[in-house]
Amino acid sequence: MVQGNDSADFVAVDWGTSRMRLWPMRRDGSVLGERRADDGLEAGRQRGFSAILENHLAELGVTGETPVVVCGMAGSRQGWKEAAYVEVPAPLEKVLADSVAPDAGGRAVRILPGMAQRGDAPDVMRGEETQLLGLVLKTGLSDALVAMPGTHSKWVTLSGGAVAGFSTVMTGELFQLLAEHSILRHSIGDAAGGVEAGQPAFSAGLEAGLRNPAGVLQGLFGIRAASLLEGLPPGDAAACLSGLLIGAEIGAAAGSKAGNAATILVASGRMERLYRAGMVLAGLTPLTVDADEVVRMGLLAAARGLWLGGEA
Amino acid sequence: MVQGNDSADFVAVDWGTSRMRLWPMRRDGSVLGERRADDGLEAGRQRGFSAILENHLAELGVTGETPVVVCGMAGSRQGWKEAAYVEVPAPLEKVLADSVAPDAGGRAVRILPGMAQRGDAPDVMRGEETQLLGLVLKTGLSDALVAMPGTHSKWVTLSGGAVAGFSTVMTGELFQLLAEHSILRHSIGDAAGGVEAGQPAFSAGLEAGLRNPAGVLQGLFGIRAASLLEGLPPGDAAACLSGLLIGAEIGAAAGSKAGNAATILVASGRMERLYRAGMVLAGLTPLTVDADEVVRMGLLAAARGLWLGGEA
Repeated sequence: MVQGNDSADFVAVDWGTSRMRLWPMRRDGSVLGERRADDGLEAGRQRGFSAILENHLAELGVTGETPVVVCGMAGSRQGWKEAAYVEVPAPLEKVLADSVAPDAGGRAVRILPGMAQRGDAPDVMRGEETQLLGLVLKTGLSDALVAMPGTHSKWVTLSGGAVAGFSTVMTGELFQLLAEHSILRHSIGDAAGGVEAGQPAFSAGLEAGLRNPAGVLQGLFGIRAASLLEGLPPGDAAACLSGLLIGAEIGAAAGSKAGNAATILVASGRMERLYRAGMVLAGLTPLTVDADEVVRMGLLAAARGLWLGGEA
Repeated sequence: MVQGNDSADFVAVDWGTSRMRLWPMRRDGSVLGERRADDGLEAGRQRGFSAILENHLAELGVTGETPVVVCGMAGSRQGWKEAAYVEVPAPLEKVLADSVAPDAGGRAVRILPGMAQRGDAPDVMRGEETQLLGLVLKTGLSDALVAMPGTHSKWVTLSGGAVAGFSTVMTGELFQLLAEHSILRHSIGDAAGGVEAGQPAFSAGLEAGLRNPAGVLQGLFGIRAASLLEGLPPGDAAACLSGLLIGAEIGAAAGSKAGNAATILVASGRMERLYRAGMVLAGLTPLTVDADEVVRMGLLAAARGLWLGGEA
């Protein structure tokens, strides 16, 4: 059903590897609608990024020449148009300054760049920098350790509104691989999906991972052994694996928090509960912000700078 | 081709999850032949363990009523006949005392049990206990930290000829999963197979893993980032991943070595070279023993105790 969104001032788009989200918005930050689709990078390469975008804009009822601002993997080398990484350390505003304009058939479209860290600990992000921009605007905090959990979790050190450094931990991907493809699949079966923070086995895994992040590789096979020796149930095996990986992730990252910095958790729902439990146990009681909300705020900041001008 | 092995005093069999090895042997330890097959647990369950064994004995030219001693997963609950785990701490001789006799159609067959560790760090082994038995006989060492690398590496603390404790690290399985199924596959391609200890990227990964085993989960994505940012070649990405995992494994295990204990590496070929490089870097210069040789020595010790009597 076509929504009447012709009063949108711009459209905010988070375009990732495997899916995209679109929000028609007004300059005051109000959100007029939402659309989610499984059109990721591969779809863009096959059917054309501009054609896919125009199709979704039409479905949203966005008419005329409404401008569009995009973050995420659409700006990668395999995406619509490469937006070269901003190298850290860098103030977040640099992301706004370095946007690129793809060929969009006459529509005003800008893609924001990701950030890269070179040197001893090379790392990259695309999309999270826009969430960081939004969370600084939302919270007013400019010194923080920011946890952004997911398939590839990011841990970011913000210092004076700049990204001082960051690291990526493949926790979500490792959990899936281990639960579905390793020997642990015999212990977990189809119980991988619903781990909750209240499960004692999750807490036990969390404590083990936090206490000794260096022992995480040893701890993995322990789950298999516990199911052989003690009949550990599949739901508990899944919870223990999740706790162990998240605990080791938090334990290794917690040391990078500066004394006076805040701790922010960018997550919602079940993921927020799992990571909050681990961070509290590590003594890092976090302020939670919603990823969708802050990515829209970051894209709004970009749209204001590019087309809409000033504050709302 | 049928070999003439009717002078064998017994047949030593290592029967694992996915393959089996058989050696007709004399009581003095001499090896008359060898046969390797992909008949693991699944084959045993489908076609019968006894039938498979008799087929291979016939192919080896082993006639009459020659007894057979077996170690490995054939003694698991999903195997031929369950040989209940010996619980550690326990002297290795307990493995000899607790063998079980499966239904083998009149042939004398004994299966040796594995070992289990209960409590805070549950763990299990099946097959390695027989290698340990052989290596104590071969080296005369009864106090040692023993590294047994592989798909599921074992690190065993031997104290006074007893297994004091052990841990399993899924290093080989993790390497395969990450190289073939994670986002790192885009960086490694088909270069996973041939990592060598002399590669600078292997050494770099090793050093990073040893220096900070707790950072291994962060280090994984760094390989992807290095290939995006610096064009890290696939062979170097594979070597770096292998080094990082092996380094973290050794770094986490090295602390469990008692001051006066020896260090033993049970490995051969490429695997021996990779682990030796890491252990030397960690200050644990190991004595190397060959896994096949010590498993045969362990099975020989069992055969002597059961049927052949005394020393050679």
